[in-house]
Amino acid sequence: MPEKPSSRVEITLLPERRKILATKGETVLLTLRQGGIDVSGSCGGEGRCGECKVRFAHPPPVCEGDRRLLRGEELKQGWRLACLHCVKEPVSIYREERSGVFDAKAQMDAVLSDVVVDPRIEAHYLRLPPPQREDQDADLARLFAGLGEKVVVPLPILRKLPHILRDNRFALTVVQAGEDVLDLRPRDCSKEIYGVAIDVGTTTLAAYLLDLSCGKQLALRATGNPQAVAGADVITRIGYVQRRGQQGLEELQDRVIAELNGLISDMASEAGIPENTIYETMIVGNPTMLHLLLGIDPSTIGYSPYVPVLYSTQELTASEIGLRIAPFGKVRILPAVSAYLGADVVAGLLYADVGVRGKVELFLDIGTNGEIVLAIGDRLVACSAAAGPAFEGASICQGMSALAGAIDHVFIDDADVCCSAIGGVNAIGICGSGLVDTVAELRRVGLIDCSGRLRPTQHPLSSRIEGEGAERRFLLTDKESPVCITQKDIRSCQLAKGAIRAGVEAIFEHAHIKSSDLDRVLIGGAFGCSLRPESLLRTGVLPRIAPHKISLLGNSAGQGAKIALCDRKASERLRWIVEHTEYVELSYLASFPRRFVNHMGFPADRELEQLESGIEARGGID
Amino acid sequence: MPEKPSSRVEITLLPERRKILATKGETVLLTLRQGGIDVSGSCGGEGRCGECKVRFAHPPPVCEGDRRLLRGEELKQGWRLACLHCVKEPVSIYREERSGVFDAKAQMDAVLSDVVVDPRIEAHYLRLPPPQREDQDADLARLFAGLGEKVVVPLPILRKLPHILRDNRFALTVVQAGEDVLDLRPRDCSKEIYGVAIDVGTTTLAAYLLDLSCGKQLALRATGNPQAVAGADVITRIGYVQRRGQQGLEELQDRVIAELNGLISDMASEAGIPENTIYETMIVGNPTMLHLLLGIDPSTIGYSPYVPVLYSTQELTASEIGLRIAPFGKVRILPAVSAYLGADVVAGLLYADVGVRGKVELFLDIGTNGEIVLAIGDRLVACSAAAGPAFEGASICQGMSALAGAIDHVFIDDADVCCSAIGGVNAIGICGSGLVDTVAELRRVGLIDCSGRLRPTQHPLSSRIEGEGAERRFLLTDKESPVCITQKDIRSCQLAKGAIRAGVEAIFEHAHIKSSDLDRVLIGGAFGCSLRPESLLRTGVLPRIAPHKISLLGNSAGQGAKIALCDRKASERLRWIVEHTEYVELSYLASFPRRFVNHMGFPADRELEQLESGIEARGGID
Repeated sequence: MPEKPSSRVEITLLPERRKILATKGETVLLTLRQGGIDVSGSCGGEGRCGECKVRFAHPPPVCEGDRRLLRGEELKQGWRLACLHCVKEPVSIYREERSGVFDAKAQMDAVLSDVVVDPRIEAHYLRLPPPQREDQDADLARLFAGLGEKVVVPLPILRKLPHILRDNRFALTVVQAGEDVLDLRPRDCSKEIYGVAIDVGTTTLAAYLLDLSCGKQLALRATGNPQAVAGADVITRIGYVQRRGQQGLEELQDRVIAELNGLISDMASEAGIPENTIYETMIVGNPTMLHLLLGIDPSTIGYSPYVPVLYSTQELTASEIGLRIAPFGKVRILPAVSAYLGADVVAGLLYADVGVRGKVELFLDIGTNGEIVLAIGDRLVACSAAAGPAFEGASICQGMSALAGAIDHVFIDDADVCCSAIGGVNAIGICGSGLVDTVAELRRVGLIDCSGRLRPTQHPLSSRIEGEGAERRFLLTDKESPVCITQKDIRSCQLAKGAIRAGVEAIFEHAHIKSSDLDRVLIGGAFGCSLRPESLLRTGVLPRIAPHKISLLGNSAGQGAKIALCDRKASERLRWIVEHTEYVELSYLASFPRRFVNHMGFPADRELEQLESGIEARGGID
Repeated sequence: MPEKPSSRVEITLLPERRKILATKGETVLLTLRQGGIDVSGSCGGEGRCGECKVRFAHPPPVCEGDRRLLRGEELKQGWRLACLHCVKEPVSIYREERSGVFDAKAQMDAVLSDVVVDPRIEAHYLRLPPPQREDQDADLARLFAGLGEKVVVPLPILRKLPHILRDNRFALTVVQAGEDVLDLRPRDCSKEIYGVAIDVGTTTLAAYLLDLSCGKQLALRATGNPQAVAGADVITRIGYVQRRGQQGLEELQDRVIAELNGLISDMASEAGIPENTIYETMIVGNPTMLHLLLGIDPSTIGYSPYVPVLYSTQELTASEIGLRIAPFGKVRILPAVSAYLGADVVAGLLYADVGVRGKVELFLDIGTNGEIVLAIGDRLVACSAAAGPAFEGASICQGMSALAGAIDHVFIDDADVCCSAIGGVNAIGICGSGLVDTVAELRRVGLIDCSGRLRPTQHPLSSRIEGEGAERRFLLTDKESPVCITQKDIRSCQLAKGAIRAGVEAIFEHAHIKSSDLDRVLIGGAFGCSLRPESLLRTGVLPRIAPHKISLLGNSAGQGAKIALCDRKASERLRWIVEHTEYVELSYLASFPRRFVNHMGFPADRELEQLESGIEARGGID
């Protein structure tokens, strides 16, 4: 990990000119990954799979491994294997779809390399015998015979049957999910089946378009949840619905559906496929978001005993909620455990395989709420802590979602602040991971004390502290319109991290576990994908633990949704998760408020020193 | 049966003043039933059940049985038991709903006395425990627990759940069909479930509203099929769709759906129930009618090898075809055997229990097509003969449906023609049974010869024959605007009866059966309910058979639909019927055209004499 300024060089991602700070001598592959950029590669960086190929603007000399795995044409164009070349000087790399490099927000999203591709959506190409005097079977019976089973054909699809058969010499493709026929298409279209995985976050919507015939991801999109006008967190949105009644509920539903339709439409155009060949959407989200998506009043989630209308739904048809995919395409929504432990967390647990390794593992999905799940063997204990929207960049003075222009990583060197902004453009604000990084770095160098107060010290960067009281702020950039974080932002960060840490401690106590028992910490959530584990330790979001035991999963909810979309057997595991998770309602614990206050502070100086030496010793995170 | 004019008196049904010819000395009950009027009565006319009570305008003296079974108040109002009073002079009887007398077209429709009432639609009243801190189950899980099973709740119904629960102290009624929830209603509405049985005939639509909690029929309606503008028979309607394409198909679908919605709405108002408490419609009809009802192109039924799109459908939701009952109410359509042996016939076979008595039985459903099924033990052999619309009163000079003003029965006495018109109003036309009666009577008295020619003879009624050639006609009435039948009408009747008789003979040959082997003939179809069996014999529609072996079933298709609606186990028997019926395609039989021509003529004089002595000997039909 980059600790010394002299060892730093920049990698520039083209065409956006986004910059990543690299450590000299490190491989390009590792540097890209540490910078939050996903690069595929299944051989573990040993130059054997060839998946991590990237195109250099000024390519380094071809090495033996490049020559073995790349074509001559590719070598000429500047392609090299990212794992075989070290960073010696500033380099520029093309971020192109054909390369292994994908957008930062979709880290680890490109390929579900170890997932079985066995989707519930199937397409069968049939050539049926035409009717004859001796064979007066009806068209539908003919279809059943061809499939070898009876299926359910919705009326509008059935109406197409006689024409498709007679216009195409009785050759057609049947798209089905179990016994439900979703479409009939002329001739052989059996490879043209697509699905979309969707994560409806309180702050961010993420969608992934997958080719269900092979599991390949064809496109992805993320955008802000347009319900934000009705409040930043679930409680505010529930209040909005309670005040405005049916109209408010329909408004919020319409907003999210319209936005999702936009994402789907964009992805379909990008992939060059018709939207009506998308036959399934797999949706995750917290219970409130899913109630709003379905147009179901979430009011009862807002007060004790926090009971939603449903934890899981039967599958729906796309047209029932107005999603513009194939009209009879399926909409599946993953199950929740409780009103505050939703399908997004369950999907994350699926993705992270929590509870199958027989270890003690802590899974955190950090978003507007922080969901915490502790696995002890095959027992899962969970809670949900109201972190507030700070970790998603909301309610922060210059906060923003993790979009272009957002500062997502911050390093403080002896005398300088290095910020990287998403998209390589000028920084215009700060997102959740940038906030945690900033607070962690300021605490590390002592510009924040353990109570969270921003204070000038001997440090040369003290000059960047301006103003007084709640208005006091630290300038991250020194451009004309500087990006800064305020004392109030730091307090918001403290509230968020205090809630999460208090939840972690409550769960530990409930399960009779100490932090030293932990084998692994898994961080999910959109926020998790660009976090630096050290910053979680320095700010005290996590208890003290060896940094190499912390794994960042990226958008674990979206990943889980993709797995559920691609592998029909995932439903068994999902059921297992829901049945085996014991939910602890934090608001019913008398000890929780005390714990919360205790953990709002940062690690004391001495504790911080021990932490730093631990981080230094391990050379950062694997 | 009334054979001698001197022994005839009239029964007048009030308030319409419809007249029925009665034989002196016969009981009122028997006379009403023979006149095509349904009167309930489960004791077999022995004065024990009290169900056949009718109200006389000028009541006869009270007898012992009246006093035993009727209240003093009722006796004062003129109520008497129809089975205990004989017709001695003209009487007037009130046709009121509270009495056992129902409309003629609904003969035998009022009570399904021997049908198990175990409908697939169930309503359960539940009182659920409200949520508590220790019981955070979701509303839906609470519902599942209350029902003891998982059910499928459509989204719009699910949206009502939290409000119904909290506004009604968690007490609600769940209406379901199997695992599908059709409605959630506040508090206890478990007795408020209704169903409609519908017979979509080519010429006539009939609908019956039933209380599914007890099987009672609450209302019934019949009307002409408004698709008649597109042709009188299925082939013409298919041609209409082929010429006009999608627009023509939608037009015909819209017409029938709108008309059915009108019938349903009328019945619901009459019964005083909301339409959205009707949770199931059970529909029968021939395959072409059902394709049109569903908006499915029936073109392929129109040409060899006569293959429809479907013989049976999965159940539908009412809103899928625009039927205005409960929005998630079910629409079930009974299965067909072939393109010309439809759900209407299958329903009739269900109603008539054909094939379960181990006898040789001939079932005829006479409508625009004549469907013929021969049961030999548990083997069923069937065919369909294109009779044309004559037997439904269409394509006849003054033909009309069996509505008010239609002559439905005709007797020719020595010197007079007695006609009864539906509704007791002046005759304005003639319906199918009137046509057959007229032709049979004219043949009996010799005014039609065995070739079908209308000819003046010594008979005093010869004076009623007017005109020449195809224009020649017989005057049935002698009012200012007389009703007559023409030579051309007689030819239409001959085409219809020739087709049916030829079908009967073809099936006999196929099954190696002679008419003397027949144990029973069962006549179904709307037309069947007002037919006189003797007329079927005199015209040669049926082969020679003892008249008492002929049973008239009324609208057997509608009756079968009602059974299927009320008894969930009927589906097993329907499946059995479909699987055990062997369909013979008449148009593929080389011998059929010859047979058809052979049977266009009427029984020869000598044959007719034998027939008459047979009819005389048995005193008519039981």
